[in-house]
Amino acid sequence: MDEKLLKSVEILLNLACSEDIGEGDISTSNLVPPDENKTALFVAKEDGVIAGLPVAEMIFRKLDRNIEWETLVSDGFRVKKGDTIARFSGNYRALLSGERTALNFLQRMSGIATLTSQFVKAVEGTGVKILDTRKTLPGYRLLDKYSIKMGRATNHRIGLYDMVMIKDNHIQVAGGIKNAVEAIRRKIPLSIKIEVETSTLEMVREAIEAGADIIMLDNMNTETIAKAVTLIDKRAKTEASGNVSLQRIREIAETGVDFISVGALTHSVKALDISQRLL
Amino acid sequence: MDEKLLKSVEILLNLACSEDIGEGDISTSNLVPPDENKTALFVAKEDGVIAGLPVAEMIFRKLDRNIEWETLVSDGFRVKKGDTIARFSGNYRALLSGERTALNFLQRMSGIATLTSQFVKAVEGTGVKILDTRKTLPGYRLLDKYSIKMGRATNHRIGLYDMVMIKDNHIQVAGGIKNAVEAIRRKIPLSIKIEVETSTLEMVREAIEAGADIIMLDNMNTETIAKAVTLIDKRAKTEASGNVSLQRIREIAETGVDFISVGALTHSVKALDISQRLL
Amino acid sequence: MDEKLLKSVEILLNLACSEDIGEGDISTSNLVPPDENKTALFVAKEDGVIAGLPVAEMIFRKLDRNIEWETLVSDGFRVKKGDTIARFSGNYRALLSGERTALNFLQRMSGIATLTSQFVKAVEGTGVKILDTRKTLPGYRLLDKYSIKMGRATNHRIGLYDMVMIKDNHIQVAGGIKNAVEAIRRKIPLSIKIEVETSTLEMVREAIEAGADIIMLDNMNTETIAKAVTLIDKRAKTEASGNVSLQRIREIAETGVDFISVGALTHSVKALDISQRLL
Amino acid sequence: MDEKLLKSVEILLNLACSEDIGEGDISTSNLVPPDENKTALFVAKEDGVIAGLPVAEMIFRKLDRNIEWETLVSDGFRVKKGDTIARFSGNYRALLSGERTALNFLQRMSGIATLTSQFVKAVEGTGVKILDTRKTLPGYRLLDKYSIKMGRATNHRIGLYDMVMIKDNHIQVAGGIKNAVEAIRRKIPLSIKIEVETSTLEMVREAIEAGADIIMLDNMNTETIAKAVTLIDKRAKTEASGNVSLQRIREIAETGVDFISVGALTHSVKALDISQRLL
Amino acid sequence: MDEKLLKSVEILLNLACSEDIGEGDISTSNLVPPDENKTALFVAKEDGVIAGLPVAEMIFRKLDRNIEWETLVSDGFRVKKGDTIARFSGNYRALLSGERTALNFLQRMSGIATLTSQFVKAVEGTGVKILDTRKTLPGYRLLDKYSIKMGRATNHRIGLYDMVMIKDNHIQVAGGIKNAVEAIRRKIPLSIKIEVETSTLEMVREAIEAGADIIMLDNMNTETIAKAVTLIDKRAKTEASGNVSLQRIREIAETGVDFISVGALTHSVKALDISQRLL
Amino acid sequence: MDEKLLKSVEILLNLACSEDIGEGDISTSNLVPPDENKTALFVAKEDGVIAGLPVAEMIFRKLDRNIEWETLVSDGFRVKKGDTIARFSGNYRALLSGERTALNFLQRMSGIATLTSQFVKAVEGTGVKILDTRKTLPGYRLLDKYSIKMGRATNHRIGLYDMVMIKDNHIQVAGGIKNAVEAIRRKIPLSIKIEVETSTLEMVREAIEAGADIIMLDNMNTETIAKAVTLIDKRAKTEASGNVSLQRIREIAETGVDFISVGALTHSVKALDISQRLL
Repeated sequence: MDEKLLKSVEILLNLACSEDIGEGDISTSNLVPPDENKTALFVAKEDGVIAGLPVAEMIFRKLDRNIEWETLVSDGFRVKKGDTIARFSGNYRALLSGERTALNFLQRMSGIATLTSQFVKAVEGTGVKILDTRKTLPGYRLLDKYSIKMGRATNHRIGLYDMVMIKDNHIQVAGGIKNAVEAIRRKIPLSIKIEVETSTLEMVREAIEAGADIIMLDNMNTETIAKAVTLIDKRAKTEASGNVSLQRIREIAETGVDFISVGALTHSVKALDISQRLL
Repeated sequence: MDEKLLKSVEILLNLACSEDIGEGDISTSNLVPPDENKTALFVAKEDGVIAGLPVAEMIFRKLDRNIEWETLVSDGFRVKKGDTIARFSGNYRALLSGERTALNFLQRMSGIATLTSQFVKAVEGTGVKILDTRKTLPGYRLLDKYSIKMGRATNHRIGLYDMVMIKDNHIQVAGGIKNAVEAIRRKIPLSIKIEVETSTLEMVREAIEAGADIIMLDNMNTETIAKAVTLIDKRAKTEASGNVSLQRIREIAETGVDFISVGALTHSVKALDISQRLL
Repeated sequence: MDEKLLKSVEILLNLACSEDIGEGDISTSNLVPPDENKTALFVAKEDGVIAGLPVAEMIFRKLDRNIEWETLVSDGFRVKKGDTIARFSGNYRALLSGERTALNFLQRMSGIATLTSQFVKAVEGTGVKILDTRKTLPGYRLLDKYSIKMGRATNHRIGLYDMVMIKDNHIQVAGGIKNAVEAIRRKIPLSIKIEVETSTLEMVREAIEAGADIIMLDNMNTETIAKAVTLIDKRAKTEASGNVSLQRIREIAETGVDFISVGALTHSVKALDISQRLL
Repeated sequence: MDEKLLKSVEILLNLACSEDIGEGDISTSNLVPPDENKTALFVAKEDGVIAGLPVAEMIFRKLDRNIEWETLVSDGFRVKKGDTIARFSGNYRALLSGERTALNFLQRMSGIATLTSQFVKAVEGTGVKILDTRKTLPGYRLLDKYSIKMGRATNHRIGLYDMVMIKDNHIQVAGGIKNAVEAIRRKIPLSIKIEVETSTLEMVREAIEAGADIIMLDNMNTETIAKAVTLIDKRAKTEASGNVSLQRIREIAETGVDFISVGALTHSVKALDISQRLL
Repeated sequence: MDEKLLKSVEILLNLACSEDIGEGDISTSNLVPPDENKTALFVAKEDGVIAGLPVAEMIFRKLDRNIEWETLVSDGFRVKKGDTIARFSGNYRALLSGERTALNFLQRMSGIATLTSQFVKAVEGTGVKILDTRKTLPGYRLLDKYSIKMGRATNHRIGLYDMVMIKDNHIQVAGGIKNAVEAIRRKIPLSIKIEVETSTLEMVREAIEAGADIIMLDNMNTETIAKAVTLIDKRAKTEASGNVSLQRIREIAETGVDFISVGALTHSVKALDISQRLL
Repeated sequence: MDEKLLKSVEILLNLACSEDIGEGDISTSNLVPPDENKTALFVAKEDGVIAGLPVAEMIFRKLDRNIEWETLVSDGFRVKKGDTIARFSGNYRALLSGERTALNFLQRMSGIATLTSQFVKAVEGTGVKILDTRKTLPGYRLLDKYSIKMGRATNHRIGLYDMVMIKDNHIQVAGGIKNAVEAIRRKIPLSIKIEVETSTLEMVREAIEAGADIIMLDNMNTETIAKAVTLIDKRAKTEASGNVSLQRIREIAETGVDFISVGALTHSVKALDISQRLL
């Protein structure tokens, strides 16, 4: 987890603790002695890929700086139903007050990693890389992108700010792909890449001439994707996008595109079932 | 939306904008003229109850202070598939950059309100009030609770801090329900209520004697709930909880309990399908 | 001291240090060597109940992280004139720069605790609980409430936000007590209590019917209080309020009310005389 | 009110509102309509000098940006019992929620101004200036100093940071007054003044030689003060300090000292009685 | 000026005002009436390219929200000695208190723009783009980069975070250019470019094979640069760097490199002479 | 370094790191192992006086909390070309990422100290003290003033807020020097000094009578300065200002003025050449 991600997590953790614990878990803090310790386990209730253990640890550590935390499985690795994922000992109050928030994060993140790993597996051997999209939960962008990486996929741009993506509206306003690319090239630093969204082979041709770094092949059928890849002939990177299901992805991958982006990775998250057990 | 909720929304909006737009939508800000205006609509793609329009407005207003915003349906009201929900005009750049974030909030919140309204309808005429739980998305507690109210249910405690909830672990540590209630009564301000979680009629009896303000009847079958309600005889408020489905809720409501809490309201959110259309 | 109180204290400490020490005690920091240590005592100059030692310690600890701090009397306990209250050793500069601010807090807080303990003693054996009010110094609400607890009284609501208090103006606007209670019940979470302020037996009757959780008997004479208590007959908690002096309080307590609130506890604070002595 | 004072007031106001109103006055906001307006008066219940009206206005303006505020008496001017001090109209909710906090500030500040004006009057015609001290309530330093000015006295240093005050401990550590003054002169900017606290004529002599800007005559009797003034002969400013009562101050003033400092101005504040009346 | 730059400017302005004006210009605020207005001019005392007028305006607007501000020359344009650059009217106090800070920014920024424009002119017609470097004043990175753009050059990466730059140390640790590029490609999002710093033709060859997006030709003589450009043959962008003076730059530009970076643009800033005149 | 300076440095450091490193040095963090350690030296490339080592250390400590830092020369002391200034060991990544920022601060600060020490040396034996001015880089006021002290000069006022400086505009508005001084004396605390800027002997006379604490002799020739010093005759401190070069300063110093202020100390900073060497 890099610094930017950690800051983002820290903000979400603070929100989560502030909204749930606020000025204190008045039931627990008034009834459970401050110095008693307990041990707890996280146990997988179904098969999947784990992501989010550092987040769960951070929650408990906020509540008990001296929590002893042992992970039996690291982020990015598979578990089977019944596997113990982590074992941790610390302040009894902390274990009671932090349980729900910790699980909420861990289950969502592991759900994303699990689904991602299925898409990655589906294109194994083709050399294609799976990309995520901007369809993430507001506030969870970096956390969702981290989970994607734990599922072995590649992150697309982070937001609207770190890469140019020229879409229909932009092309229309600028008066064509070439105009758009040239206009923007003059204004941005050397460090920024330009991707152009295309939906026809004609647009693909224009994008090549304009010198796009990446060309998105949007909502094309497999045959057209294949033609576009041939046409581009390595003069730009290629990304297939739109209506990508686990059923269809292998076929697309075999056209020779460089990347396939999949909105479903973060759009429809099914939490992985995990529980906390006090020993 | 009260001040505390607005602050919470403001934080989530800032996170959402910061992570997606960051230092700017470099494609749009470099290609679309700064002063062009457009009009857009939100249109329902399925039936449901709307919640979150003020949040959507806040996003666009962050991007264009002078957005003209007209809602055709208010939060808490029903729409049919095809209904126009809102019509807004403003800066073209703002409409492009804010679309996804606005829809993400609006669809989730309307999804919660829609499901809640189904539970409320199921107990119509019994006088029972539906309650939410703490099973909300980290960071979204107050927003989820707001959506619950838009679906006409009642908010339970906000978090661990604004009401005492004495559970199994607490009872065990304190040495019985009576000890627990007395110990905590001495330490809290006059303003705080005490609820006791019970799973047997014996515990219910103890809770009455201890002077609990509310008694939770947890995971009891309908017959036991009915007996508990009779036993308590208005000396405390009653809340049924656990395994509450749309199928079973009417039966529980007819036992005469005051409240029924439903975790599913926020736990498994299915977004309501809504789209943005540029005119 | 719970987390919310600590945050409040931290803010006041920062204000106090910032306004007094600002960018540094330029006399002391330029003349006293940085590494010299001294020992100091806090000594009571009159009898009373101590409150505020953790605050005093926090001030010195801000100035010298390694201060050695030993309390001979804990918050909430009595001292006699001449008793040593605390003994602390640390950086000479810190002891000079922090003295006045530390004493200012300690003397005010101990003054409140001392007066409170006199009221508590006056009702001993009646089962009545003494409550504080909102007549606290702006910025000192939580600190004053803490001192009240050190004097063995009970805190009323913390502010306007954590309990409903329906007063004359509200009743008039709502069109009667019953309307007021019902209107508000629909809008607040389950966790919030409702108190109604009454000044006649007629109003008391209305408040009972409306289902108030607590009924305030405001500015009634002792005889009327007694009648109200009988009328209410445990269907709500009762609080006597207004013109409560040390002379009159026992008489009120014997009517059987549950609570008596006393504005004077924080309204007219006479500091307890305490001095710092360098050894 | 200068910018630094305004910032300090802003912080105290935020604390006051946060601790009292918090997330909302739930009684008033749920029962009084949001758009109703009322008019209120502040009325003096005893004679005095007013200070703090801008603070009171700021509180109501926080709650209603459009409050209409008319002062009939300005800060620093006298009122007689029964005089109307201010008349203001605005949101009904705001008038109810802000009343207590506004009065708390206004009464304390006017109390300080009133007492100060009595000391200033007592030395009228002697040319002496009355000074305040650091014995102010933690967090209220600048507000108290403002009230002092409204009573027509002069502010001493603001804190430990804006002027050097060389006291017994410093002199002892430095090995004499001359050493102390020289040591510190080398380290501070040109802008900082140096005052030396003296208790004997011998110390006064040393302080003159050391080139002190101001010499404090601490706890001297009137005769010794007179001798010191003669001895100093305008080579430094002179400040009498210690045991200064309304009875004795004229006698001290007639010795020819430049300044007399009075701890009692802020140390023992008796609030000026003022009430709010809704029309 | 985009949002990120504006934030950066805002921080520097706050620092500048806080350190110079602090709690107030006590001379001006106590002597000049608060409501008097004056008009002032900025006048060029030598020829150059202007940059920083929006910053100067922001300073005066902080001090007087209603300043009337008219620029006769925009950022990025040339002035001759004696030209009036801007004319502004507003609060007399604001004009006095803001003058020095405003000029300090304006003179430095115009100095950078002026020098940059000389380098840009020197390569006119070759198609080469001038780049800046990281040799900017701490805290002034974005402001310096803005001034560079006003001089018609292109910004390189903003910092260490928005583009990969593989240098000697990195190559050594990774075990060669190819290893380095491959290792990093796996870890970064799709949006990030990779530049490799090379000092020999051998390294250039390796960088091409590794698939670098940009190849830096560091401290090479003009002949070697020319050979490298031929070798690369458009398979990557090329940047010449090191010992680039106004004398030598044309020669380098004629080798056909895409970019030349010049540290001196921000490293040795000679302020452009500009003065403020009160009318 | 006192607390106020440290805060100011902290802000600049955060800006510097934020703008250069941002969310991470993506080249180094992805290629250099996280746990490798290295040793580095700072070496002087020319003679001078060092200032800024604590700032450089703070930068590296931000990047590696456990850096081992050994200074061979302290701030305020002279180095010869080739001298090692500091030797430090720590995380390899930290040494790479922090180098440029650290040197940027150190070279500028040492440049100021070096020039200052030349002016101080030029007046040796005359008893005159060298003062700095407000001509510092925005945001660098306190840092520049610190460097001045390291060169053995005295700091003038810090900004517009800590001392009154009555200039032409103020005198004109107030209607004469005497009016100006009297008007301001009534409004400021006892702790504030008043300086009057004069340009003729007539103004000097007025300033003496008005009771100014310091009289600035602005842009006078040496003969007039000498006359002014005689005229003032120790009744106020004297400061010569304007057109002070290393050539002329000795002559001014011999007139007997107390202080000479020199804008050039911070206005035209030539960095001292220092480099970092990895061992």
